[in-house]
Amino acid sequence: MWKELKEEVFQANLDLVKHGLVIFTWGNVSAIDRKAGFVAIKPSGVSYEAMRPDDMVVLDVEGHVVEGRLKPSSDTATHLVLYKSFPDVGGVVHTHSTYATAWAQAGKDVPNIGTTHADYFKDAIPCTRPMTQAEVEGQYEQETGNVIVERFAEINPLHTPGVLVSGHGPFAFGADAHSAVHNAVVLEQVAKMAAISLAINPHLQMNDLLIKKHFERKHGKNAYYGQ
Amino acid sequence: MWKELKEEVFQANLDLVKHGLVIFTWGNVSAIDRKAGFVAIKPSGVSYEAMRPDDMVVLDVEGHVVEGRLKPSSDTATHLVLYKSFPDVGGVVHTHSTYATAWAQAGKDVPNIGTTHADYFKDAIPCTRPMTQAEVEGQYEQETGNVIVERFAEINPLHTPGVLVSGHGPFAFGADAHSAVHNAVVLEQVAKMAAISLAINPHLQMNDLLIKKHFERKHGKNAYYGQ
Amino acid sequence: MWKELKEEVFQANLDLVKHGLVIFTWGNVSAIDRKAGFVAIKPSGVSYEAMRPDDMVVLDVEGHVVEGRLKPSSDTATHLVLYKSFPDVGGVVHTHSTYATAWAQAGKDVPNIGTTHADYFKDAIPCTRPMTQAEVEGQYEQETGNVIVERFAEINPLHTPGVLVSGHGPFAFGADAHSAVHNAVVLEQVAKMAAISLAINPHLQMNDLLIKKHFERKHGKNAYYGQ
Amino acid sequence: MWKELKEEVFQANLDLVKHGLVIFTWGNVSAIDRKAGFVAIKPSGVSYEAMRPDDMVVLDVEGHVVEGRLKPSSDTATHLVLYKSFPDVGGVVHTHSTYATAWAQAGKDVPNIGTTHADYFKDAIPCTRPMTQAEVEGQYEQETGNVIVERFAEINPLHTPGVLVSGHGPFAFGADAHSAVHNAVVLEQVAKMAAISLAINPHLQMNDLLIKKHFERKHGKNAYYGQ
Repeated sequence: MWKELKEEVFQANLDLVKHGLVIFTWGNVSAIDRKAGFVAIKPSGVSYEAMRPDDMVVLDVEGHVVEGRLKPSSDTATHLVLYKSFPDVGGVVHTHSTYATAWAQAGKDVPNIGTTHADYFKDAIPCTRPMTQAEVEGQYEQETGNVIVERFAEINPLHTPGVLVSGHGPFAFGADAHSAVHNAVVLEQVAKMAAISLAINPHLQMNDLLIKKHFERKHGKNAYYGQ
Repeated sequence: MWKELKEEVFQANLDLVKHGLVIFTWGNVSAIDRKAGFVAIKPSGVSYEAMRPDDMVVLDVEGHVVEGRLKPSSDTATHLVLYKSFPDVGGVVHTHSTYATAWAQAGKDVPNIGTTHADYFKDAIPCTRPMTQAEVEGQYEQETGNVIVERFAEINPLHTPGVLVSGHGPFAFGADAHSAVHNAVVLEQVAKMAAISLAINPHLQMNDLLIKKHFERKHGKNAYYGQ
Repeated sequence: MWKELKEEVFQANLDLVKHGLVIFTWGNVSAIDRKAGFVAIKPSGVSYEAMRPDDMVVLDVEGHVVEGRLKPSSDTATHLVLYKSFPDVGGVVHTHSTYATAWAQAGKDVPNIGTTHADYFKDAIPCTRPMTQAEVEGQYEQETGNVIVERFAEINPLHTPGVLVSGHGPFAFGADAHSAVHNAVVLEQVAKMAAISLAINPHLQMNDLLIKKHFERKHGKNAYYGQ
Repeated sequence: MWKELKEEVFQANLDLVKHGLVIFTWGNVSAIDRKAGFVAIKPSGVSYEAMRPDDMVVLDVEGHVVEGRLKPSSDTATHLVLYKSFPDVGGVVHTHSTYATAWAQAGKDVPNIGTTHADYFKDAIPCTRPMTQAEVEGQYEQETGNVIVERFAEINPLHTPGVLVSGHGPFAFGADAHSAVHNAVVLEQVAKMAAISLAINPHLQMNDLLIKKHFERKHGKNAYYGQ
């Protein structure tokens, strides 16, 4: 059952390794079947080398396991909050990729200072506020999802499909698992380039017109982009 | 038809991947057959793994497709402006390579501070001025070519075969597609070394005599260079 | 004799290469069999390509060779001090990995500024005080162990399984050789991310609650973590 | 003739590629047969992929070609000055490796701030003074050798087997071609770690005792070192 969904999630998890975003088991990808309301996610603590499609865990959005012999990723509760709050999101990725995590540790949004960023993210990649004592000591993983959702009050998660959890690391979203991984790769690369740009010129000026143009030519009503 | 031209452009596009200059489809190479007045360029949005020589699109310099089933790269109009304005240029490359793009986002020329740079680029690698509202909202890709050409009013594009489009990323040129790719690799490397040098010593002094010597021994009348 | 111990140490030394932590022969791993009181360690100056399991040297904790044709690593005396002082440590790793060594040269603790760090290290990764003339000119390798032990007076070496020797480089520990190597990889990665975070935001604030939570959910009494 | 010498130089040139020190043809290695007084060096502008042992060029120390169909590297005159001035040097390497070149462009010595450096280089890796107009416009490659030799007036080139030519890049030396390449790899790595250390702590203090100890335990009268 759910063979296709599990295959998609399995492949997307391996793609994290292929793109150099994870060390050891430091990452997880999930996808949702919106019709059925079921989510498939990477099992907890299984190495990428040993992992098989059938190891993926299938749950409903309340977190009840529907299929799978293994424990789901301990970040599952965060993924489920995102699926419940962002109805257009079909895939979610969490990594500790180097530069995105460095920005999260710095507690700063990655500013939108170039067309590479604007081709994929309409706004700065937002960083959440620090979590409170109640949140950290309560349902921590669920509250991690909640601080993300709070930050997207006025942001469309498919227009800015990534976020930094303060002091922790990045999550990326997409219409499906594959595009969520794609956005996680871009997030890491734009986080790296922004760090270098600001070291070269701390007083750099963004060209808002250019940023808007690049987002629109790829995602706007009259999109025509393709390199 | 145009088999040789398409093969050259196909191979040059794959070389971008081999040299680590592109992620996904973030780059494109074209070449011109000056006698025929025809340009071959990478098709739009096709992955490098799936691409075949016959997928290259052949156009005249006004942008009319002469041969090819696919849409040309959305950056085609920029390439065509460069071929029309720089009569000695035979190949054009566009990438979002990490350090060159970081300098473009910083809005700064890459200064010529060493012999590695001077072996290939006579001057600083120039950064264009920010584009205006009219340019961005008008024929954007064509205007991108125009701001490049404006910046080369007093620069020979084969002596300084690269440029940074402000807030966007690098273009490199060459006598053919192969040497344009070669120059794109060098541009990325000298952009990286300049960023590191300036972090080590923000007050570094260039030795203009040395810079001139290195350019001349490789490109001057009495060139004799070869490592 | 000691076939299993030597195999474990041999494999762990090769894993240093696989994870990109060593150049040439710049690293060594040992493990202890606590029942027998014997330590196996990499031989001195043998290249990783040529090394075989039988080349590992077996010693007692006072440094007397029990088995092996080759000289033990010249860092052996440091390893032995750590085994004698840290009764729960079963494996020790020394490398000159890039970012961890850079922090050691900077003479600074790697601050615990994110959950990646906190998942493995309870506290900052401590840097030892500079060694004195008497220590450097005396039993130098043994004294290197002593300054490490001095720094862990109030730190549990399995809760913070790594250290920087000032002006030198990192040592990592673990319950066995395999987990010591794992911790050496993490140490290098968190050292890299901390350097980048501080370049982005020199005034960043740690969230102590989050740090504590992440250490506890993986190593505390009610540990449940797995990505 | 000179088969062994040419093989050694050929292999050492390929090792530059294997260790990631060169892009395209940006590097060259030579070795000298002190008895015969003959030097073998990489030919000029030949790609590493196409190069064969028989392509190496053999010259006497005055630069007269003894054997070889190809032009010797255009840096040959620099190598020959070093062989004539440094009687114990048996191999010379020139590269444009990233961090070493960045320090050369910064016009600064790489300070000896750690044991990795001290294991191979007794002192800071010196940077030459800027070359004068007469030197640059005269016998440039020979004068490049002369400014290096000038800088080693009080430095033993086998104790500090590397140098940065200001605004240009590194040369490394050794008892033979193989150890010269080894030292070129170390030079690049210590240049990288020093840049990172100084970014982390611009006010770091060297421990001179430790530096001296590490050089002595590996190169001193009573050397015993081996990791």
